[in-house]
Amino acid sequence: MSKSIKLAILGLGTVGTGVLDLLQDNLSELKRRSGHDIVITQVGTRRQRDDIDPSIKQQSDLMAIAQSDDVDIIVEVIGGQTVAKEVIIHAIKNGKHVVTANKALLAEHGNEIFDLADKHNVHVAYEAAVAGGIPIIKVLREALAANKVDWLTGIINGTGNFIMSEMRDKGRTFEDVLAEAQALGYAEADPTFDVEGIDAAHKLALLASIAFGIPLQFDKVYCEGITAITLQDVTYAEELGYRIKHLGFAVRRYDGQDPQSVSKKVTGIELRVHPTLIPQDKLLANVNGVKNAVLVNSHPLGQTLYYGDGAGAGATASAVMADVMDLIRVLTVKNGHHVPHLAFMPNQLSDTPILPAEQMVTGYYLRLQATDTPGVLADVTRILSDAGINIDAILQKPAHQKGQVPIIILTLPVIESQMNVAIKKIEALQAITSDVVRIRLNELD
Amino acid sequence: MSKSIKLAILGLGTVGTGVLDLLQDNLSELKRRSGHDIVITQVGTRRQRDDIDPSIKQQSDLMAIAQSDDVDIIVEVIGGQTVAKEVIIHAIKNGKHVVTANKALLAEHGNEIFDLADKHNVHVAYEAAVAGGIPIIKVLREALAANKVDWLTGIINGTGNFIMSEMRDKGRTFEDVLAEAQALGYAEADPTFDVEGIDAAHKLALLASIAFGIPLQFDKVYCEGITAITLQDVTYAEELGYRIKHLGFAVRRYDGQDPQSVSKKVTGIELRVHPTLIPQDKLLANVNGVKNAVLVNSHPLGQTLYYGDGAGAGATASAVMADVMDLIRVLTVKNGHHVPHLAFMPNQLSDTPILPAEQMVTGYYLRLQATDTPGVLADVTRILSDAGINIDAILQKPAHQKGQVPIIILTLPVIESQMNVAIKKIEALQAITSDVVRIRLNELD
Repeated sequence: MSKSIKLAILGLGTVGTGVLDLLQDNLSELKRRSGHDIVITQVGTRRQRDDIDPSIKQQSDLMAIAQSDDVDIIVEVIGGQTVAKEVIIHAIKNGKHVVTANKALLAEHGNEIFDLADKHNVHVAYEAAVAGGIPIIKVLREALAANKVDWLTGIINGTGNFIMSEMRDKGRTFEDVLAEAQALGYAEADPTFDVEGIDAAHKLALLASIAFGIPLQFDKVYCEGITAITLQDVTYAEELGYRIKHLGFAVRRYDGQDPQSVSKKVTGIELRVHPTLIPQDKLLANVNGVKNAVLVNSHPLGQTLYYGDGAGAGATASAVMADVMDLIRVLTVKNGHHVPHLAFMPNQLSDTPILPAEQMVTGYYLRLQATDTPGVLADVTRILSDAGINIDAILQKPAHQKGQVPIIILTLPVIESQMNVAIKKIEALQAITSDVVRIRLNELD
Repeated sequence: MSKSIKLAILGLGTVGTGVLDLLQDNLSELKRRSGHDIVITQVGTRRQRDDIDPSIKQQSDLMAIAQSDDVDIIVEVIGGQTVAKEVIIHAIKNGKHVVTANKALLAEHGNEIFDLADKHNVHVAYEAAVAGGIPIIKVLREALAANKVDWLTGIINGTGNFIMSEMRDKGRTFEDVLAEAQALGYAEADPTFDVEGIDAAHKLALLASIAFGIPLQFDKVYCEGITAITLQDVTYAEELGYRIKHLGFAVRRYDGQDPQSVSKKVTGIELRVHPTLIPQDKLLANVNGVKNAVLVNSHPLGQTLYYGDGAGAGATASAVMADVMDLIRVLTVKNGHHVPHLAFMPNQLSDTPILPAEQMVTGYYLRLQATDTPGVLADVTRILSDAGINIDAILQKPAHQKGQVPIIILTLPVIESQMNVAIKKIEALQAITSDVVRIRLNELD
């Protein structure tokens, strides 16, 4: 029996608008997955906006929305710790489920807010509060639920990572990159929260709590920013095979102060945010720009890493709406958690055809073996060009055997059937002495 | 009200034993998270084993276990498509929830099995079937539920990736590495499933189905292995800035054959497994050895990547037990999905102390500025040695300013308070002309 789930979005900044856009783009997909309709009934905004569907009620009285009968789930994306806190508490007391991206509020007042939610038997979901679109909250709470987390670390502030990446890649100074980050909108006019590590500390407090089963303790996070990092140290670190990243660490410590201890009695937890040298060949060292990544070391799983966009309208909206999808099951499923076996409702599976090989589209690496005849490259490139195949790169190697020249060609994406025809023609050339070797190529962009 | 959830483990090979080990190691953690006890009541095994807790009933009649009143959840880890299928169907018909790691069975018979499960209102959970301990099923079904997946690709066969990594790193031939993989137990005596891409195709069929909402269609996956990859092509690819990886691709195609089309009408899906050149600087190109990783490109989230162990007892047991934890909620929670806010039951949060900064343990990068005096390095290393601090590397740079020599020292992990004392002593040396710069260091191993 299909229901209509009623959402209110509080705040129409970047994230709120991202949620509206997501629903516009993907509503049919959401229905196919959940089996239910999703309707935004109200938005909380100080200024009336003309570009919003007139069926959505716009109002500035957030407390009225938080207690409205016309709302099942409140999405709080206004930020800050004053109004947001009041509204969330009011919504909880009125039996509404809440979805929030507000890391600062939860890191500093989460114990109180979650207690209240438990008392009122509602959920406060917060996937978007840490690492944006990377589902690290779900991973730690659910996917790794059978593991004992030993430690986790991560790049959980995109601005800081952008600055460190640019300093390393381009030899720029901290001040220079910060000014650009501010111009690009990656960093606030007052960049303190990002560059002093406070934003990362908020997120780390949340991650540590769900990894170890401890209350939120933001005030105990040791916090050091990136303002003191010089280009000189970035360069020396690279020379020694390391890279400086601004990381948050949550570490279980066994048996007090002895780092060599093999006993498994947990005696303390380290919570710290600071610049850190890590080996260049680790994946985490190669997470660049504004991207985020979290590395979790747990028993018995070992190391797993989660990478993606840590901020931005689309990534944050993705996390917010994933929480909404979970809450839809809370609101509609009577016997426990029920995700469809194949993710979509069984009667909603589509019959989109699987394409046969000859209709597939990919780039290609081709290796030809040619006798060293002038003109063979001209013949080959003409055949490719006639077939509508664009060449991206050519590498002609010195002859291995007498008179046998390997020619390597990289192509842009092409339909496989066209490539088949072209390869047949190339193989028919007198100067080509063996079958063309072909391996597919993908730029992953 | 705490319950006791009764599991049966069918099969005591690597994975089944891994599940037993996990429960032995982490049961208290699982109880803290779920609020319920977990008991293995029966194991299905052909040979009686002496090393199993005598309270667990060992028996070879799997069908009897599948219908036993003493079992809530059946964990099928025997593999294969004959007995495993019969037992799973029998369990479903007897109202048992099932957890399985059986990718081949689900890829080839999943449509039928999931239909039957829906009819009998039970769940068949299969996180462990794809990419081992990487929670890619949960990510696609739940965390990315609000996204439209455009394409996904991944390294989803560890054996194949081990072979490709060794060929590239060490210039070894395919045959040579395969022989070693067999000796190490990474590859079967008959390596066909791995090296011909069939195992990857099974997993890809599952991923594509939950990404796009299509029935399982293993028989339509285009499948090419790595047996034809030569060292020559590996080398040429590297020279051109690419790396050859054995990847599975699931791609939504818009508007037929025109790759340039910007229209969003889906007209087909590509399912293919084959060696692929990808740019060296992508994270996926740097996933080495037996590791797995899946890269998902979805709207509006963008690219996210999930990395970890794709096989092995610990990783697979982690995924199996994550499914069990989800099913515990199905069995115990009356009003929808209920993960505790902070992952653990509110009355189970621990009061493990957060350690103060001076008790933290990390490696260090130290940069000293010294006058070019013989003996300063001896003084510094003696101070560190006296403080019990082990030096991992030293880099002495040429003087920048007249007589000013930068000395960089990397240390092994040390307690911060000891480092503080040592640094004070170093700064007191006459030859040291400015404050010691210190940045923490972590090997991430």
